[in-house]
Amino acid sequence: MTIATRLAARDDTRLPARLARSRRAVAAGTGLRTEDFDAWLAGRAKAHRFTVERVPLEKIEGWSFAPDGGNLGHHSGRFFSVEGLHVVIDGHEWQQPIIVQPEVGILGILAKEFDGVLHFLMQAKMEPGNPHLLQLSPTVQATHSNYTGVHRGAHVRYLEYFTRAAHGRVLADVLQSEHGSWFLCKSNRNMIIETFDDVPPDDDFRWLTLGQIGELMRRDNVVNMDARSVLACAPTAPAEASAVRSDTEMLSWFTNERARHGVRSKRIPLTGVRDWVRTDDHIQHVDQRYFRVTGVSVEAGNREVTSWMQPLFEPVGLGLCAFLVRHFGGVPHLLVHARAEAGLLDTVELGPTVQCTPDNYVHLPVGDWPPFLEFVRRAGVDRIRYSAVHSDEGGRFLNAESRYLLVEADEADAGTEPPPGYAWVTPGQLNSLARHGHYLNMQARTLLAVVGLLNGLL
Amino acid sequence: MTIATRLAARDDTRLPARLARSRRAVAAGTGLRTEDFDAWLAGRAKAHRFTVERVPLEKIEGWSFAPDGGNLGHHSGRFFSVEGLHVVIDGHEWQQPIIVQPEVGILGILAKEFDGVLHFLMQAKMEPGNPHLLQLSPTVQATHSNYTGVHRGAHVRYLEYFTRAAHGRVLADVLQSEHGSWFLCKSNRNMIIETFDDVPPDDDFRWLTLGQIGELMRRDNVVNMDARSVLACAPTAPAEASAVRSDTEMLSWFTNERARHGVRSKRIPLTGVRDWVRTDDHIQHVDQRYFRVTGVSVEAGNREVTSWMQPLFEPVGLGLCAFLVRHFGGVPHLLVHARAEAGLLDTVELGPTVQCTPDNYVHLPVGDWPPFLEFVRRAGVDRIRYSAVHSDEGGRFLNAESRYLLVEADEADAGTEPPPGYAWVTPGQLNSLARHGHYLNMQARTLLAVVGLLNGLL
Repeated sequence: MTIATRLAARDDTRLPARLARSRRAVAAGTGLRTEDFDAWLAGRAKAHRFTVERVPLEKIEGWSFAPDGGNLGHHSGRFFSVEGLHVVIDGHEWQQPIIVQPEVGILGILAKEFDGVLHFLMQAKMEPGNPHLLQLSPTVQATHSNYTGVHRGAHVRYLEYFTRAAHGRVLADVLQSEHGSWFLCKSNRNMIIETFDDVPPDDDFRWLTLGQIGELMRRDNVVNMDARSVLACAPTAPAEASAVRSDTEMLSWFTNERARHGVRSKRIPLTGVRDWVRTDDHIQHVDQRYFRVTGVSVEAGNREVTSWMQPLFEPVGLGLCAFLVRHFGGVPHLLVHARAEAGLLDTVELGPTVQCTPDNYVHLPVGDWPPFLEFVRRAGVDRIRYSAVHSDEGGRFLNAESRYLLVEADEADAGTEPPPGYAWVTPGQLNSLARHGHYLNMQARTLLAVVGLLNGLL
Repeated sequence: MTIATRLAARDDTRLPARLARSRRAVAAGTGLRTEDFDAWLAGRAKAHRFTVERVPLEKIEGWSFAPDGGNLGHHSGRFFSVEGLHVVIDGHEWQQPIIVQPEVGILGILAKEFDGVLHFLMQAKMEPGNPHLLQLSPTVQATHSNYTGVHRGAHVRYLEYFTRAAHGRVLADVLQSEHGSWFLCKSNRNMIIETFDDVPPDDDFRWLTLGQIGELMRRDNVVNMDARSVLACAPTAPAEASAVRSDTEMLSWFTNERARHGVRSKRIPLTGVRDWVRTDDHIQHVDQRYFRVTGVSVEAGNREVTSWMQPLFEPVGLGLCAFLVRHFGGVPHLLVHARAEAGLLDTVELGPTVQCTPDNYVHLPVGDWPPFLEFVRRAGVDRIRYSAVHSDEGGRFLNAESRYLLVEADEADAGTEPPPGYAWVTPGQLNSLARHGHYLNMQARTLLAVVGLLNGLL
């Protein structure tokens, strides 16, 4: 018996053009003009009562330090815990606190065409660690605890589009890593689902075009980390026909980078972490470097639960994440860096050219700075193709801000043959890698989203 | 200053046709007619003296059980160790011995065009655990210990083609997993490098076409596991335009499979492993199931070191690895199974439809067998598109044989909508996944190599 099964085209060849059309719609979408966005967001902030107060770690309700080893965890055993990590990367050894959350969350954006233009359902969402509390977020941002109901809160809006098969058309769906320096092997499912249903947006949600979201990414601290991560997984960059390296050569370079680095991480009790101390208020490094673990108390009107306390990681200093940009044969390329990070599942992922906290280096001789940091810091304004401050996920990180830059370079600044660990790749090549996990770190994904959503940037 | 940099085409569009041409050369290549292969291999066996004898684990020279915990390791601290693993997969819990070898080896095949046809430099290589000792192997099969000289043996022939950049053209280069049931997070670099040098083959090496290697894969225990793994990474399958699922839908299905399974593995001392016992000769399961750890003494004439002893894993029973095959709209599809395995780095990889040791099930009611095992066992000869026995890597496994099958199915046997955890994908889709790590397990790669190298199989 032969069944006539209708086959699907393997490649969705129409999608890049549809995304490009959405990117060109900068001034207005179906629901909101871009110029009215600030008033809308302010309205959402006014409609809810949000307060976040610092609380000593000892006093965060529902959380406690385990008697054996001192790991900081929730009494339910769920959400996440703060534990210790012993790290050896290429012979360099240290210990640090780390967030352990061995579950896969969903970061989902719902898409829909209006008048022939793809729109994305974005949410004004409060997270306690966000610099402005309210940021533009994916349609759904659900931890496993959220969607299995551990915290006994309200139903997560629109969640069913991301958990039920055949509820729409998948535009992207990939497990991507969280920060390798702060999370132990954490990944989230980054999804974009196109719906053909009639989906009226709730008060805290609006349908926006890629062009509108791109405009908002020009501003500081508006588009949240999860939204940037998800949008980087859509094929928004042009699929260039040629590049400095073929795709196979690029993958080979990456394979060599992954093979040549050795990362050994071992969980240890939080109490025993060397060079870190616990005060009444915080866990912090003896030199007050890197980050501290602190507590907050939250009251919110539009969250699934209206009040709670929790720990947050609070970085010390403003981060810097920059891609150097060059054109070869007219094709824009970004200089990626294969970065080994303690909490990554597989040794290295590709990060921006520069990814560091400059305050950790400015007191040192320039020769001891990370490669290209000096170039980025002294780059004139005519070299800056993009500059904005964005913060990391406000559910885990407090005021974790970094300046994101795209900086035009030339042969004298960054040669055609970059140093070991660095490679020139095109945005289209990065987009092809972003279909898969384990390739692009969170910081690279933010800048890839910037490149993909802003018109005429490179 | 603008530098004129010559760009490369991102896709090597000529490669699939070149591989297809090599596949069509079945009877002869530049160096050896296929019909003369057996005589050549027999000659190589005669030219060297190989003896492998079983030795009690207690008596393998250079290896010992650590006083604390009883892990079995080499006195140098290198090569590999046998340790204990506590495993929880989706709530199912057990303990077992596991091979720990946290380093990346190189499995490399050198390619070269002769008279317009790509040939691959294959080696007649002895491994102590191989059923026939000598099998057809990649050009280079080097552990990190090999190529950094830990075992003080001879230089690895042709190694320089795989360790020096720009020594040829990369056709494939990807980190692929080893067996997830026996290795803890082990991966090797699978490489195919095309050279333009004049490379006369040594006595133990011959240039063969894909068609010749395919013919040899019809036979039992001739083409070794590493060779099959590397060849699966070349784009030998046709790039079908359509499939039951688009590539994005396939990736989404895979992402869901990876997200929905929970695998927690924790290293424990070998001494404490529940349900396993250590005798003078072996470490084995109390029911004598699964595998045992045993020792061998080796004398060899063409190895880098001429004599040594080592432990090997010896599976109990003949394995069975089978893909069900169906045509949808004229396009062949294979039924993959997303398998959670204890030692995989990231939860699940795609395996064949059936991958098990039938002896572990035949005493149970058929309802308790793994899905599709009964169908495969009762499939008539008219359904069998391919059948051969291949063994696993003889440097770690002793007589670890499995029967590999491709079995034609219809709607009644295996529906268009398969059970959860199973999906119909095309060989071309599997080939596109094989460019990346973490997708295809070793067993699936063997069958993908079969599909890619044998003419007219599906």
